[in-house]
Amino acid sequence: MRFSDFGKKLTSHSGILQLMDDIGRPLPDGIKTYPLGGGNPARVPETEALYRREMERILADCEEFEDIISHYDAPQGRGRFIHAVASFFRSRYGWDITDENIAITNGSQSAMFYLLNLFSGKTGGSEQTILFPLMPEYIGYADQGIEDGTFRSVAARCEYFPDRTFKYTLDKEAVAAYLDQREEVGAIAVSRPTNPSGNVLTDDEINFLASLAKRHSIPLIVDNAYGLPFPHIIFTENAEPIWNEDIVLSMSLSKIGLPSIRTGIVIARKEIATALSNLNAIAALASCTMGQVLSENLIASGELVDAAERSVRPFYQEKARKAESWIRRYFEGTEYFFHRIEGSIFTWLYLPSLSIPTLRFYSILMEHGVVTVPGEYFFFGSDEKPYPHEHYDKCLRLNYSGPDDLTEEGIRIISELYRKYS
Amino acid sequence: MRFSDFGKKLTSHSGILQLMDDIGRPLPDGIKTYPLGGGNPARVPETEALYRREMERILADCEEFEDIISHYDAPQGRGRFIHAVASFFRSRYGWDITDENIAITNGSQSAMFYLLNLFSGKTGGSEQTILFPLMPEYIGYADQGIEDGTFRSVAARCEYFPDRTFKYTLDKEAVAAYLDQREEVGAIAVSRPTNPSGNVLTDDEINFLASLAKRHSIPLIVDNAYGLPFPHIIFTENAEPIWNEDIVLSMSLSKIGLPSIRTGIVIARKEIATALSNLNAIAALASCTMGQVLSENLIASGELVDAAERSVRPFYQEKARKAESWIRRYFEGTEYFFHRIEGSIFTWLYLPSLSIPTLRFYSILMEHGVVTVPGEYFFFGSDEKPYPHEHYDKCLRLNYSGPDDLTEEGIRIISELYRKYS
Repeated sequence: MRFSDFGKKLTSHSGILQLMDDIGRPLPDGIKTYPLGGGNPARVPETEALYRREMERILADCEEFEDIISHYDAPQGRGRFIHAVASFFRSRYGWDITDENIAITNGSQSAMFYLLNLFSGKTGGSEQTILFPLMPEYIGYADQGIEDGTFRSVAARCEYFPDRTFKYTLDKEAVAAYLDQREEVGAIAVSRPTNPSGNVLTDDEINFLASLAKRHSIPLIVDNAYGLPFPHIIFTENAEPIWNEDIVLSMSLSKIGLPSIRTGIVIARKEIATALSNLNAIAALASCTMGQVLSENLIASGELVDAAERSVRPFYQEKARKAESWIRRYFEGTEYFFHRIEGSIFTWLYLPSLSIPTLRFYSILMEHGVVTVPGEYFFFGSDEKPYPHEHYDKCLRLNYSGPDDLTEEGIRIISELYRKYS
Repeated sequence: MRFSDFGKKLTSHSGILQLMDDIGRPLPDGIKTYPLGGGNPARVPETEALYRREMERILADCEEFEDIISHYDAPQGRGRFIHAVASFFRSRYGWDITDENIAITNGSQSAMFYLLNLFSGKTGGSEQTILFPLMPEYIGYADQGIEDGTFRSVAARCEYFPDRTFKYTLDKEAVAAYLDQREEVGAIAVSRPTNPSGNVLTDDEINFLASLAKRHSIPLIVDNAYGLPFPHIIFTENAEPIWNEDIVLSMSLSKIGLPSIRTGIVIARKEIATALSNLNAIAALASCTMGQVLSENLIASGELVDAAERSVRPFYQEKARKAESWIRRYFEGTEYFFHRIEGSIFTWLYLPSLSIPTLRFYSILMEHGVVTVPGEYFFFGSDEKPYPHEHYDKCLRLNYSGPDDLTEEGIRIISELYRKYS
């Protein structure tokens, strides 16, 4: 039995696999665990109540539930849902889109798999690449390229502040120069808010990247899984929902209450939306209906966006505030920094005095029941090994959305072990 | 904007895309339509009632619904569901499997996309292929290869009977010879029942293929989406559920009531199940939970399999009986044949006197509101153009699972137009 190169590449020990395994499998008995790894969001009662209400409404109708479960949608997605999404963004934000600008997938990870491979890999004899202009970036992209070596990156600049925080910023000159020199780039890709760092690219940075994309006739792919207008896990004030024909916006219902139902929503120029539908037909036939059905009315009525702003954002903002206070309390006296928590459900710790790589530190933390994600996985797209960024093996991604007591104790244990391994 | 070769190949006008578009989009106003295309199954009240009961049970619990929607499963699937599936097959059929032999995907189309590419394409410098040993085969595979030219096939033999039926049979010598001569074959793949023909490979044929697979150390992939023990859309008596370490069995909940929810179940040797989980992590993060949740108890209790045997099979068998009688009635006096309807939800018409290719005939039928799928799409995997099979452009796939009046009238219109274009 021989796996193909595709099979070997995509089944090797990837970071995302370790991450998802940590999420899905119980740890050994007898160890109390502190779930600061993975990307599992918190449960937010208000959105849960909305989805329960919708499901009860569907069941109350004598036929609707049966009608929903028994028909494939078109590969593009559920017609009524697509129409609700397009109408909402057109009327609320004035975006010049119709139903044909939308494509639905089985979650935004699938959308990104399609998008990144649609624009990278062998292309008529040469090799097209994706440029990630602000590394570190989401671990889940790192292994998504079907072919090897097609993901390239520019390291983030880093601005440090006196309050022990820092912020990644776009190295505009380096990104522009890269694109000028490398005509093989097929698309630019970022997450906003950025997973893992909690950074939120400013409107200015997004507009800068979109204008570069336009100049080079390539798309800017923006993974908006934590962003605006839903789930709205953004705490800064200087970020707006941005879309234009040069931008491919990938959205998700996972962080607004439906991670297990797998619903990705892509807004893009029509040729790209059509290409995604086609890919989806071939690779998946159709997407799961349930998330579309549960959220259709909520999007059309504005309730989902209202819930995001009124409940989801404040919920995570309070979580973030507490996480920050625990980091400050327990790491006091050590050499530590953390990224400004501008959005997402993560905080990104930089531990410059760590005497071992975080991959090793991660294992030690696991032995103490503290699940985190080591930073190394979030740096990819460079031929230099190790990745040329001072943060490369000194960072940990912490998911702060779990129960407060566990998050606090997890952070305390990390700080103790940091002292030990400094 | 330049799509990669992958993008171009997988977004070109594929048969499966046309098929799914026909399913998902309304036809022009004013034309009465006869839905004999697509693969949409019928609604079977008994299974619908089971799923409604499960959903109501879940909602009645004060937390279960919320708990289900709010957590990602592991990439392999939902632990409890996997355990239920493995336990059921182990105890009912004595298969030597544990939870580690199972992988869940967003539908069996995704499972096949993973599997076909796991075993085909570039492999350490050479090019590995999939052998489809009984062509015609399912339209949905034709474009799933990431690379070009990696799907190869052996044409089915055909046995005609005096009652205007025929049956495809495996050309055992040709298949064995192909495998002896071509060491680049990475896997053998069949659907059973076969989409489009409604053929059911006999136990003998499956065992023959499995022994060839074993001899060549490659897997035999069996797409069991219509098969045993669920949905059990098999009408012959000489077919058993078969699995062993040389077989990768791909199953689905789509034809037992949940097409829109996307749940694929793969039973395979552990290395393959693990590889599928890894692929799923990278390409989709996790699979949709809802189908697993709705069917878990039904599989564990045996209710799903009982419903398949007691309701689903008789339901489609009666539909098939009627379709056959309408074909006989309306095609009387023409030169027509149809494949013995041994399983699946399709009947496969062979119209030897057709004066135009079925691709053209399909368009004419569409103008009359009759949606079918032209046969050409189901022949692939050969360098010879047209495909070297006398049925190549003379067959139509008809889905007989729609409302009786529409199916009957659709068949009548096809017979009329066949007379006109003979």
